[in-house]
Amino acid sequence: MELRSTQTPDILPSYWYNIVPDLPEPLPPMIHPSGEPVKRSELEVLFPRSLVEQELSTQSRIPIPEAVRETLLMLGRPTPLIRARRLEEALKTNARIFFKYEGVLPTGSHKINTAVAQAYYNAVESVERVSTETGAGQWGSALSLAGNIYGLKVRVFMVRASYLQKPYRRILMEAYGAEVYPSPSTKTNTGRKLLAGNPDHPGSLGIAISEAIEDVVSSEGRAKYSLGSVLNHVLLHQSVIGLETIKQLELLGVERVDYVIGCVGGGSNFAGLSYPFIGYNYNNGEPPVFIAVEPETVPSMTRGEYRYDYGDTAGLTPLLKMYTLGHDYIPPPIYAGGLRYHGVAPSLSILVKNNIVKPVAYPQDEVLKAGLVFARTQGILPAPESSHAVKAVIDVALKYRGASEKPVILFNLSGHGLLDLSAYTRNY
Amino acid sequence: MELRSTQTPDILPSYWYNIVPDLPEPLPPMIHPSGEPVKRSELEVLFPRSLVEQELSTQSRIPIPEAVRETLLMLGRPTPLIRARRLEEALKTNARIFFKYEGVLPTGSHKINTAVAQAYYNAVESVERVSTETGAGQWGSALSLAGNIYGLKVRVFMVRASYLQKPYRRILMEAYGAEVYPSPSTKTNTGRKLLAGNPDHPGSLGIAISEAIEDVVSSEGRAKYSLGSVLNHVLLHQSVIGLETIKQLELLGVERVDYVIGCVGGGSNFAGLSYPFIGYNYNNGEPPVFIAVEPETVPSMTRGEYRYDYGDTAGLTPLLKMYTLGHDYIPPPIYAGGLRYHGVAPSLSILVKNNIVKPVAYPQDEVLKAGLVFARTQGILPAPESSHAVKAVIDVALKYRGASEKPVILFNLSGHGLLDLSAYTRNY
Repeated sequence: MELRSTQTPDILPSYWYNIVPDLPEPLPPMIHPSGEPVKRSELEVLFPRSLVEQELSTQSRIPIPEAVRETLLMLGRPTPLIRARRLEEALKTNARIFFKYEGVLPTGSHKINTAVAQAYYNAVESVERVSTETGAGQWGSALSLAGNIYGLKVRVFMVRASYLQKPYRRILMEAYGAEVYPSPSTKTNTGRKLLAGNPDHPGSLGIAISEAIEDVVSSEGRAKYSLGSVLNHVLLHQSVIGLETIKQLELLGVERVDYVIGCVGGGSNFAGLSYPFIGYNYNNGEPPVFIAVEPETVPSMTRGEYRYDYGDTAGLTPLLKMYTLGHDYIPPPIYAGGLRYHGVAPSLSILVKNNIVKPVAYPQDEVLKAGLVFARTQGILPAPESSHAVKAVIDVALKYRGASEKPVILFNLSGHGLLDLSAYTRNY
Repeated sequence: MELRSTQTPDILPSYWYNIVPDLPEPLPPMIHPSGEPVKRSELEVLFPRSLVEQELSTQSRIPIPEAVRETLLMLGRPTPLIRARRLEEALKTNARIFFKYEGVLPTGSHKINTAVAQAYYNAVESVERVSTETGAGQWGSALSLAGNIYGLKVRVFMVRASYLQKPYRRILMEAYGAEVYPSPSTKTNTGRKLLAGNPDHPGSLGIAISEAIEDVVSSEGRAKYSLGSVLNHVLLHQSVIGLETIKQLELLGVERVDYVIGCVGGGSNFAGLSYPFIGYNYNNGEPPVFIAVEPETVPSMTRGEYRYDYGDTAGLTPLLKMYTLGHDYIPPPIYAGGLRYHGVAPSLSILVKNNIVKPVAYPQDEVLKAGLVFARTQGILPAPESSHAVKAVIDVALKYRGASEKPVILFNLSGHGLLDLSAYTRNY
C-alpha cells in the first residue's frame, strides 16, 4: 500500500487561498441596475462586515481563524485523498485516478466548509439569525449545523419541489434546529405573489434566494443573508479542499497532476479543489487541464452568455458579471438539484472565458450511470452532482486505455448520495 | 488541539482479536435439537471452510489477510477516534468523552468490517452467491458492497416492514448489484407458509434468517450463508474497531478508560469495540465498566433467559446458548431495526452472566432525544441504534457534573442516521 499519513491536522491549512489577485483579468465589480458599482455599505446590509471584507479582498492569503480551524477539525477535516484503483482497473486505463472525498463530513458534502466560516463571522458580529435558500438540501443542512454550532438561528427557504420530494433533507435541517419553509412561501412578498399565480409553484433556487434576501432586508438588521456558492468569499472558504490536496499529493509522492475535474452548480466545489492548483502554477508552467462539468439541461458555461445578470429571480441581488442562462431561467427538474442554477461564479466565468477552465456538459442518464460504476468499484455512491465529475473522469480515463502515458486525473467527490438514492433507480 | 495522527494505515491491525480463549468460562458448543454438538461438516454446508475454522477457533490472534486489509484501507479504515468536547460542554460534565466513528465507511456503519472478510473468504473458496437477511438494511448494504468487490452474487431477504418503509436502503443494495426480496417472500417454503397465513406479514429478522438459510440449503452447494452479527467469526472481524481504538488512545496520550459503551442487537459493534479492552486486561487489573445498551422493547440481556435457543424463527439454525427472548418472539416495530433480534451473541452472553458486561435498557423516545443532543453538539446524527449508546453515555456523563474525577467514557458510534431520518421527527 502506498497510503501514507495524509489526514493529520497539519494538512488542514491555516489560511484560505483567494484567486482574485491571480485572475488573468480584473474581476468586474458587482453593480446596481443603474450601472454604479455596489457600495461596501450596501453589501453590509446583507452580510457581516468581515465577510464583505473577504468578498472584496485582493489579498492572496487570508488567515483562517483558529476557532474555525478547530471546528473544521472536529467535523472531520482534513478529508481523505484516495486513489481509485478499482475504478482504474475496471476501466483498464493507464491513468492514475485520485479523488478528494468530502462526503465524510457530517452533512455529507463540502458545503460545511463555508457554512462554518460564515456562521462564525456572523456570530462574532452578533447577528441573531441567518437566512438562506437551498435546492437539493446540502447547503441548507450544512448551514443548519454550522449555525447550531455558533448559536445562530437559521432560516432556510427550500425549493418547494425538493421540499416535497426530499423530506429527509428537511428533517436533517430541523434536527439541527433550523426553521425550513418551502419556497415560494407565504413569508415574503415574492413568495406570496408567485403562490397567488400558482399555488403549486415548484419553486427554483433563484426564487428561494429572492425570498431569503427579502427576509433579511425586512428584518431590521437582526438577520443576515448567507449564500452557499457563487460569491468570492464562499469560494475562498472552499479552498481548503485544494490546499489540503496539494499537501496530500506531495505526501503520496505524486509530483504532477494532468487533469483536475469537478462539477459546477454555482462553482464552489470546483473552485475549492482547482483554484489553488491554478494559483500556485502547479506543474511548473505546464498547467493541468481543468474540466468543469455541468448538466446538459442547465448549460450555463457551455451555452450561457457572459454578461451582467442578477443572482436571483426577483432581481433583489446586485448584478454579477458571469456566464448566465438569464435570471428568469427555470431549470428543468433534474436529480442533481445542487446544479440547478442559472449562473456561475464570476471568478470561474473569467477562467472559462480565458480558456483556463474547459466546461463540458453531460446528459443526466449518462451521469447517473457513471455514478453507479463508481459505487460498484470504489464502494461510495456519489451525490448526483458529484457523479457529473465522475462521468468526465471516466471519459478522460478511457482515452488512456492501453496508452503509454500514465496521466494523473484528480477530481472532487464533493458528496455522497445517501440522501439522493432515488436518483439512481432508473439506471441499475 | 490535542488531535494527533490517528488515522495512518498502521493503526489498522494486522490480526483480529478472538475473545473465546479469554472468556471466564468455556463457550458452550452449538448443538443440534438432539443435544449433540454440531459437526464441522454441518457448519460447512452454511459457511465456507475458513469461516467455520474461525468460528471454532480458540486462538487469540488470527491474521487478517493482506487483501482484506487493503480493502478495509480503501474503504476508509482506520476510522477516526474523536473527543466529543462540545457534548461534554453541553452536559457540563467533568468526564472526557471519546467516540469511535464508524459512519465514515461507505455504507454508513461498522457492518462492512465483517462483510469484507466474509465476502473475501467466500470468494477464495469459489462460492458463487451469498444469501443473507437484513433488518434496518445496514448489514444488507454492507454485504452487497463487499460481494460486489469480490465478484460474488448477493441475495438479501429484507424484513418486509423495512423493505416497505425504507426504500432507500433497498435502492442502495440494488445499486451495489444485489438482489433484494421482501421477507417473508415467495422464494422459500418458510416464506410461502407465512404469506399464506397473512399476505401482509411484516416479517422479522428471525424469519428472514430462516429464509436465507433455506435458500442456501436448497442451492446444491452453490450458495453460502452470511450473517451480520451473533457468531464468533463475525465478532472477531469487528475487533478491528477496538484494536484501532487502543492504538489511537495511546497516540492521544489517554492512559486509562473508565467506561466502554455500545448498543447491542446481536452484539457485533459492542463486541468489536469492547472485546479487545476486556481481553487485553486494559487499565492493568482495574477494568473499565462495560455497558451494553438495548431497547426496552427488545430486552434480551436485561429480561431474557440464558439458555439454548435457535438463531432464527423457523428453527433451521443450530441451537446457541445465549440470552434470548425466545426464537418466536416478534419484537415490536421500533426505529432501531438493527436491534430487533431475540437473542445476543453467545460470547457476550457469557460476559453478561459473569457480570463483566453490564446490560441496560432504554425506551425509544429517550434514545432518540439523546441522538438529537449528539447531532446538535457534535454535528453527526447517529443511527437510531447508535443513539442507544449515546443515551447511556449521557447518563453516565451527567453523574460527573461538578465531580472531582475526570473519568474517560468511550463509546462506539457505530453508524450515522442519514438513512433513518424519519426516526427523529417526533422528537425535535
